This record gives sequence, C-alpha cells and structure tokens, in this order.
Amino acid sequence: MLITSVTNNKVKQWTKYKNKKYRDLDDRFMIEGMHLIEEAHKAKIIESIIILQGATNPYPQYEYYEVSDNVMDKLTMHVSNEKIMAICHKLDYELNINDHKVILLDGLQDPGNIGTIIRTAYSFGYDKVILSDNSVDLYNDKLIRSTQGAMFHIPVIQNDLKAIIKSLKKQNFTIYATTLTNAKNLSSVTNQGNIALIFGNEGNGISKEIIDMADQNIIIEMVNFESLNVAIAASICMYKFK
Amino acid sequence: MLITSVTNNKVKQWTKYKNKKYRDLDDRFMIEGMHLIEEAHKAKIIESIIILQGATNPYPQYEYYEVSDNVMDKLTMHVSNEKIMAICHKLDYELNINDHKVILLDGLQDPGNIGTIIRTAYSFGYDKVILSDNSVDLYNDKLIRSTQGAMFHIPVIQNDLKAIIKSLKKQNFTIYATTLTNAKNLSSVTNQGNIALIFGNEGNGISKEIIDMADQNIIIEMVNFESLNVAIAASICMYKFK
Repeated sequence: MLITSVTNNKVKQWTKYKNKKYRDLDDRFMIEGMHLIEEAHKAKIIESIIILQGATNPYPQYEYYEVSDNVMDKLTMHVSNEKIMAICHKLDYELNINDHKVILLDGLQDPGNIGTIIRTAYSFGYDKVILSDNSVDLYNDKLIRSTQGAMFHIPVIQNDLKAIIKSLKKQNFTIYATTLTNAKNLSSVTNQGNIALIFGNEGNGISKEIIDMADQNIIIEMVNFESLNVAIAASICMYKFK
Repeated sequence: MLITSVTNNKVKQWTKYKNKKYRDLDDRFMIEGMHLIEEAHKAKIIESIIILQGATNPYPQYEYYEVSDNVMDKLTMHVSNEKIMAICHKLDYELNINDHKVILLDGLQDPGNIGTIIRTAYSFGYDKVILSDNSVDLYNDKLIRSTQGAMFHIPVIQNDLKAIIKSLKKQNFTIYATTLTNAKNLSSVTNQGNIALIFGNEGNGISKEIIDMADQNIIIEMVNFESLNVAIAASICMYKFK
C-alpha cells in the first residue's frame, strides 16, 4: 500500500506515537533505523513496517506501507538516514520466581542514562530492569535508541517502585541502595543470593522513602569526591554483582 | 567595560573560540555557566569574565566585561540560563615520573563519552588522561560540559598516542588494551605497578597499531554479548585498577 498524503489516517495515527499518551492508549510505539528494527524483529514485536517509496523492504513478512518523501519526513525522528520505520507493540512483563538479579531505577530523567543502564544490565545477564513510574517514559525514542535494541531482549517494567520492592522482599531479595551517606563500601559487600540494586535520580539521588526500604546502603569508593554519572555508578555495581 | 555591539572586536574574538582553529591559535577557550566557571576559578585558569549588563559579577577579581542581551546571545552556546561566561587559558601538561595510573583514549568521537571518562578518572584518582590527536578536540564545549569541570583538576593531554605509549614503556608502565579478541578476562588481571589502560573509538575500537603496542589485551566478561558503551567499559576497568 502506498501512502502519499500526510493527512492519511494511518499517518496521523503513527505520528501520535511520538506522544506518550497515545503510545499508552494503543500499547504501540514507533522505531526508526535498520539496527533497532532488526532487534525488534528478533524480539517478535513488529507489527508493521514503513519504508520509503521504491526502497527494498527487508521484512516482507510483516504488513508494510510504502510512503512518499513528505510522509517519511512527517514521521521521522531524524535519527537515521535509513528511511525505514516500524510500528511495534509494547512488551509486558511481571516479576517472577526465576528472577535473581534486578535493577531498580528511581526517578531517572535522562533517557540516555536509562538506555545505557538497560543495555549494560542485558550485557551482564541481569533478569530485569524496573523503572519507577516517575522516570522518563520507557518508550521515549531517545531512551529506545540508547538501549541499541537491548530493551527488546531484557524485560523492563515501568511501575510503582515501592510495590515492586515489597514483592522482591517477599522473594528474599536483598535490596541495596547506592547513596553517599551511611553506606558500606562496594568492595566490602558480598552476596550470593537474590539481589536488587537501586540507583537514583541524576540530581537528587534515590528518594528518602525508597532508601528507607533498602536493606543496605552502598557507596562506590572514590579518591576525589565527585558524584559519578548514574549510568557509570550503575555499571560498576552491576559488574561487581554480575 | 560595557559592550553593546556584536561587531565589537572583543566579541568577534570571543566568538571565534567556538572554533578549534582559533582556540589553538590563542591557547584560549570559552566556558559558560556558574558551575564550570567556579571549577575554572579553583583551577586558576580564568582570564576574563563576561556577564550580562546589570547582573552582579561573582568574580570581580578578574578582568570583566558587561555585555548587552544581543551580545550575550551571540556568544552563548545556550547551555545555561545563567548568562555568565569566561575566557580561560588552556592548561599544559606533560607525562612525568610521578604518574602511576593513566588512561589512554584512541580516536574517541563522542564528546560526552570523553567528558564522562575524564570525570570518572578524576573520581578514581588516576594521574592523567591522554587523548589521541585524532579524537574530538579536548576543548570542544560539549566535552568540557560533560566533564562537569573535572578536566580542570585532572591533567588531560591531547597528543600522539604512539609517542606517549613509547614514553610510558620507558617508565615501566604495563599497557592494557581493551578489546574483544585475544584478551584475558578483566577479573583475572592483577597489577600493582604502573598501568595504562587504553580504550578505543565508539564504532571501531582501538586501532590495530595501538593494540600491537599493548602488553596485554583485556576483556570485560559479559553474559550476553553486546558491546558496552566505551565510557561504561572504561569506568568498570578504572574502578578495578583504582
């Protein structure tokens, strides 16, 4: 099917997916560029492909739409010159009994930080990443891009962190909060059981009510006191407990 | 002194500092916002302060210029609403006999990655960061911002990496290259002596000729094979050898 008008209903609908409200309403989101689309394909979440008129479609197995230049310009987030997009359905996960190592993110606002943490958590074999509901939307396009597709392979949940921590405690998880005060040095902490690591907002750290729920505060030892970027801090801890 | 014209010679000169060529020519660069300026002040590299007409100057000890809105708009890199800028002179460092732990960056192109690595190297007490001359310019404004001022406190050198490695070898440094092949697991490497850790370009890694100069290749063990962001990989290694 060829679409050449930016007022076409499909185009209007897809464009709405740049907005969280409509992503939530339809449980759909839009991605761009070959690499992400290949990862979404492997994760079996692609619903339809949108390609530039006349281009070869590498994924003929899905419903697809050819669009004219002006329509592609309307849809694109201008992050790729590849002029291929896909509509995907969201993934839906819950905590389960097989989880042993999870990452909790409290109020993170930088999509790049969250994406990098998800990508690193996947590399180190963590079971899940849980993003507090007051963090940036998981389907933010910058966030998706900075995961480089890893978020299609490691389960990520966006939910109420307090409820999640209560569930984890019932599953005998030890909850570690990374903070700068009342904290044990990272290198002195050992744990062979189920663990949850909490990392907090870029400016303010973890909120007090979440810290109060933790079993142990930990700090990354530094020579010069300089707060570390949260994705850096998270990665050092994830490597330690991998 | 009040400047209200964007064609004023000082304004023309300062604006040129957005360009590497003129930063190199004058050995000067421009920074913006209170936090960076405070760090530059501590590092004693400020030459002059530029503030918006009528604003209070927190640094009256330096030569300073009040400028009108239109001049500030011309100068600003629009990263801060604080409308204060400073002209600084570059720092100049060389390797020396007291260096024990250094970071080498080969061909990095993302200013944010380099800045984050410099900030982390400072936190962990590394002696120097050396940036290859084919990397992004050290005085790139995004790079400076992402160091959050740490680059004014840890010596950073931008130079020919091969020459630097030769010098380090004469000082009995063990040179480690992070690569994905022919590499020893990070956790199995121990070293109490002088060390240099090399990290490579975001897409291509470390160049072959630099890898060939290393004493040992190291790899960060992963569960799911996914290349790590270079700032993440660097931070994990820096923590390990801190």
